[in-house]
Amino acid sequence: MTPPPTLAQQLAAKQREISVAEFFERNRQILGFDNPQRSLLTTVKEAVDNAVDSAEEARVLPDVLVEISKEGDDRLRVAVTDNGPGILRKEIPNIFARLLYGSRFHSNRQARGQQGIGISAAVLYANLTTARPAHIVSKVEEEEAAHVLDLVIDTQKNQPRVVAEDLLLWDRPHGTRVEVVLKARYVRGRQSPYEYLRGTAIVNPHARLVLVEPDGTRVTFERASQELPPLAKETLPHPYGLELGELGYLLKGTRRPTLGEFLSKDLAGVSSRATREVFERSGIRPTRPPSSIQGEEQERLLAALHEVPLVAPAADCLSPIGATLIKRGLRNVLGDLRPEFYAPPVSRPPKVRGGFPFMVEVGLVYGGGLPPDPPIQILRFANRVPLLFQQGACAITTAIAHLDWRRYGLEQKGGAGVPSGPAVVLVHVASTKIPFTSEAKEAIAEDAEIDKEVTLALQAAARHLRAHISRMSRREFASDKFEIIQRILPKLAEKTSHLVGKPAPDLTPVITRIMDIVHVDSKLVRTDAAVRLPVEVTNYTPRARVLELFVEIPPDEFAAATFDPAPEGTEPALGRAWWTLPKLAPSGRTQLEVRFPAKSDVDAGDLDWYVVGIDESHVLGADPLPGDWDVRLPRTIVEAAEAAEAESAAAGPDEGEVDYDAAESSASASDEE
Amino acid sequence: MTPPPTLAQQLAAKQREISVAEFFERNRQILGFDNPQRSLLTTVKEAVDNAVDSAEEARVLPDVLVEISKEGDDRLRVAVTDNGPGILRKEIPNIFARLLYGSRFHSNRQARGQQGIGISAAVLYANLTTARPAHIVSKVEEEEAAHVLDLVIDTQKNQPRVVAEDLLLWDRPHGTRVEVVLKARYVRGRQSPYEYLRGTAIVNPHARLVLVEPDGTRVTFERASQELPPLAKETLPHPYGLELGELGYLLKGTRRPTLGEFLSKDLAGVSSRATREVFERSGIRPTRPPSSIQGEEQERLLAALHEVPLVAPAADCLSPIGATLIKRGLRNVLGDLRPEFYAPPVSRPPKVRGGFPFMVEVGLVYGGGLPPDPPIQILRFANRVPLLFQQGACAITTAIAHLDWRRYGLEQKGGAGVPSGPAVVLVHVASTKIPFTSEAKEAIAEDAEIDKEVTLALQAAARHLRAHISRMSRREFASDKFEIIQRILPKLAEKTSHLVGKPAPDLTPVITRIMDIVHVDSKLVRTDAAVRLPVEVTNYTPRARVLELFVEIPPDEFAAATFDPAPEGTEPALGRAWWTLPKLAPSGRTQLEVRFPAKSDVDAGDLDWYVVGIDESHVLGADPLPGDWDVRLPRTIVEAAEAAEAESAAAGPDEGEVDYDAAESSASASDEE
Repeated sequence: MTPPPTLAQQLAAKQREISVAEFFERNRQILGFDNPQRSLLTTVKEAVDNAVDSAEEARVLPDVLVEISKEGDDRLRVAVTDNGPGILRKEIPNIFARLLYGSRFHSNRQARGQQGIGISAAVLYANLTTARPAHIVSKVEEEEAAHVLDLVIDTQKNQPRVVAEDLLLWDRPHGTRVEVVLKARYVRGRQSPYEYLRGTAIVNPHARLVLVEPDGTRVTFERASQELPPLAKETLPHPYGLELGELGYLLKGTRRPTLGEFLSKDLAGVSSRATREVFERSGIRPTRPPSSIQGEEQERLLAALHEVPLVAPAADCLSPIGATLIKRGLRNVLGDLRPEFYAPPVSRPPKVRGGFPFMVEVGLVYGGGLPPDPPIQILRFANRVPLLFQQGACAITTAIAHLDWRRYGLEQKGGAGVPSGPAVVLVHVASTKIPFTSEAKEAIAEDAEIDKEVTLALQAAARHLRAHISRMSRREFASDKFEIIQRILPKLAEKTSHLVGKPAPDLTPVITRIMDIVHVDSKLVRTDAAVRLPVEVTNYTPRARVLELFVEIPPDEFAAATFDPAPEGTEPALGRAWWTLPKLAPSGRTQLEVRFPAKSDVDAGDLDWYVVGIDESHVLGADPLPGDWDVRLPRTIVEAAEAAEAESAAAGPDEGEVDYDAAESSASASDEE
Repeated sequence: MTPPPTLAQQLAAKQREISVAEFFERNRQILGFDNPQRSLLTTVKEAVDNAVDSAEEARVLPDVLVEISKEGDDRLRVAVTDNGPGILRKEIPNIFARLLYGSRFHSNRQARGQQGIGISAAVLYANLTTARPAHIVSKVEEEEAAHVLDLVIDTQKNQPRVVAEDLLLWDRPHGTRVEVVLKARYVRGRQSPYEYLRGTAIVNPHARLVLVEPDGTRVTFERASQELPPLAKETLPHPYGLELGELGYLLKGTRRPTLGEFLSKDLAGVSSRATREVFERSGIRPTRPPSSIQGEEQERLLAALHEVPLVAPAADCLSPIGATLIKRGLRNVLGDLRPEFYAPPVSRPPKVRGGFPFMVEVGLVYGGGLPPDPPIQILRFANRVPLLFQQGACAITTAIAHLDWRRYGLEQKGGAGVPSGPAVVLVHVASTKIPFTSEAKEAIAEDAEIDKEVTLALQAAARHLRAHISRMSRREFASDKFEIIQRILPKLAEKTSHLVGKPAPDLTPVITRIMDIVHVDSKLVRTDAAVRLPVEVTNYTPRARVLELFVEIPPDEFAAATFDPAPEGTEPALGRAWWTLPKLAPSGRTQLEVRFPAKSDVDAGDLDWYVVGIDESHVLGADPLPGDWDVRLPRTIVEAAEAAEAESAAAGPDEGEVDYDAAESSASASDEE
């Protein structure tokens, strides 16, 4: 007779392995499949991300068709077709019906998919909710026919099962089509496939994306660029942020015969000088076989690698969006809202966290037709993929909420939280490995390094915003004054003249003395032939002025710009040009013009105007030249200005005794009639 | 000569399986290991959750020791020892050094651990950051010695590797100790092991938890109850929320010979009547073998199961905290802040989502020493485990933020977001499967069913809050008036008497007429011998009053209460008692007292006082009797009140002409001197 099992034996009998597919089937919310709307978005997203990744890997301009149609009350059929290189027959089952299987997890370069989970998770969810297999068609160039497979996942084993198979003569040279029927709900608007595809189009202008909605509506996001972005290169692990255990795996797994070769060939950023220093500090000989470095020696080696200065990670494993596309993207998404100000997009240099390079880009727009009241709009991107859910849990949002935006001119209760105001902030984090908060890849986890870089990028963009807002408020103040004087003084003069029975005098000299300002007035005119930026400089001061005018243009745009008249000097690398203006008598005016090609994306806000030869407080529409301009001026501006001043002083005041303050205050008073 | 590989072949060559350990090593932020502080908390949490779970399974009162000590600059040693049943030698490696392995994933009942990931993830992180193996000691009762194992995880295979093994004579009959050295940082305060253990102690008063901090400080959370909560029972899947695919697995996996037996024995909540109805609606014969039900028939079967009324899930697979512990827990956590109001804790009935039963409990306290300005404090619990991170991403927070708290007396900008005010809200979600947003188990994913239940529970608690706040503001208004009159009238009288050279008159009758109120004044006095609640009723009206006084006490507390004098009637099941008070002449006063045992948790706010026999606007400190009290009054109150009124009217007014308004307004004026 066997004794009854003890408690420990009973408990042990319950211990079991859990298949990863079973785990995610039970915890599908972690993968982004917790309600019908989110499940649809996640399915579309995983399929499209794969489609764009694979077309780029094959160096083909991506062409993706997303078809969504109704299949009964609460079911949708989703089919995504791409023009990628296609998949070999033997790999199809694993790629589409096995979790944790893929090509991008072990490659250390920026890609949309990184986990080997996404599309199989969509198949798992479809199997679970409708019991229908996924229907895959894929053709590679070297074969005549496409393979057609119906797949389900055996969740207890996390293995694919082929339930039907066929061949098909397909009307395309290569490509893949994945089709699933799942419990889902289609809504247009926020967090929809439409919004996701629009966001994707913005930062992937080389892709052509077509969406067919359940009601038959066909939306095409046309390709805006024929140029493929450079393919991000695979990179070696960088020692910064490498953990001891990871170093151990690398030392054990390498084929290099010596530690010296291991450091210089298996790690990124370790120069020969750094290698020497690492050996000096750690006291380990470079000829030792890597696998012999164990325990305490490993710790010394890692400490030395963290202390010695290393070369920053190469940027070519990353694929940033770039300033031009960030701006174009923002312009597309904002449509007719026409913001008044585009901050120059900020691109931070690549940094490393946990051995993985990453970089941050930020775009910011302000004013115009943007709604002034609600919280600012945040557009989040990770590796060129828009993030639509879990905004509150994302490191990007946290960095925005921790910045004191009041210092930069936005409203923010208590100096924390998402600020309010007519602004949109775009943040892109690119990395060979994005630390997402969950497998659904909807939010970036809190991380000190990422937080720091996002904050620095936001601050850089926000400083431009502050300069713009303060410039605008100064301008507004001066314009208000200008307008009041121009409207009220003539009325006053007319009344007075009528009373004393005399004709009204010419008021221009008086207005000029009250204003005492040089007005630099630039506008943007977009015609079919060109983008024109005429600039008018008017001297509303009572003295003759000799001024030097400077413009700064984003260098990319500068290359295509033409000027009339030709500038006296330029620095194309910095996008700078300057003119000495003809001497302007009081009320005198002069014009110049900057022109760009018709297709240019340039905006009035992209051009910064600076002036030398007059005090900052007497200029409207331009700023004093910043100290970092080291241009050799064509002649000594200061001398010229002094000469003009002397001349003007000799001519004496233009007008008799005028009490400007009184005139101005009675002007304000009568304005209230 | 072999031709060069085609593009599709090159891409296929890169496809690889990803081990779940590799995946989580790279994505350790998903498991809660993204910075040294959070990694420490996650490690302690996983070890302690396991310790408490295993002691409860063995029906032993949990006794857990958490020792944290420094191991160099940025490293800590964490050792957690429990008095659980111990683990058989053969299961130790898998339990501590293999991801997705455990006993609780497949059991359908409430437990802290559910995923089979937690403690192995801590071992993985320790291996990775310090390259040190985990050190496990475990002893089962039936063996003489404890097994000692040093373990690491082979991440490429997700398999345990035993690097050292020994036997030990351990000074305890059974138990387990897990010890890891990891990169971590100790801070006391928010999101610390201290806060986590305190939170755990609150809702697990049957556990004794000891924390030894790195500086040697020893904190003991003593056991507050000798009673183990009932062990949550395993339950069968409930058809509500079951997906088609899941039904398919169940039909395929069952050993029942017929569909009829399958429905009644493998599913929860399907009565024999419901079974008959399901067969009628679906048109499937009950004698069919379950595995023969496929495709379209499965869909018909599931549709019928979703349409037919089923028995709600049994609550015994869940282990709610319960009203008493919620209140005691809140009292502990609030310490000396002494809130003025505890809303009666709310327990919602069990519901089902996705086949898994769940239920929601809510506690709410208000006022007293709680800070009035900042957002309210939210205490989140899932299966009796405190949730300390990711508050913003949690469904509990979302439900709180979506409720319009302005309707319930709290401040809330725009009627959305976490409200402000001196309040603490505790929310507990208990389920056989909590849908966490990630494997770190720090936040509950958005879910319509959970959101609805949390919202209903919050509303129920908030209605009590509203009643309390409005009662308080009425009371405050009357008290203010009372105080002014009592302070000012005597002064006025004195001055006037002095002027006319007469002695100051007795003002009590005047004050009584101005006040025109009956005051029910209750206090709580906690002594070593008892908790006493003396109640004083004073008639500040100019008429004699015969009143009926009612009290409502939580039924649990009522059982232990004694009354002096004895009430005229009680309804113990509802916690109700009532008295007819002796007739009170103007300025007359009477007392009664309710007493509880010294150990009672009762609070002044738990007792609700009601009065009959006088208009609501003339009572301070009690409310009119609610309509749902169906008590047979001992005599006809209305008659008695009328008789008293008639008698009082016959006696005539107590005082001559007094202009109350004038007296009151000059009182206010002179108050400002």
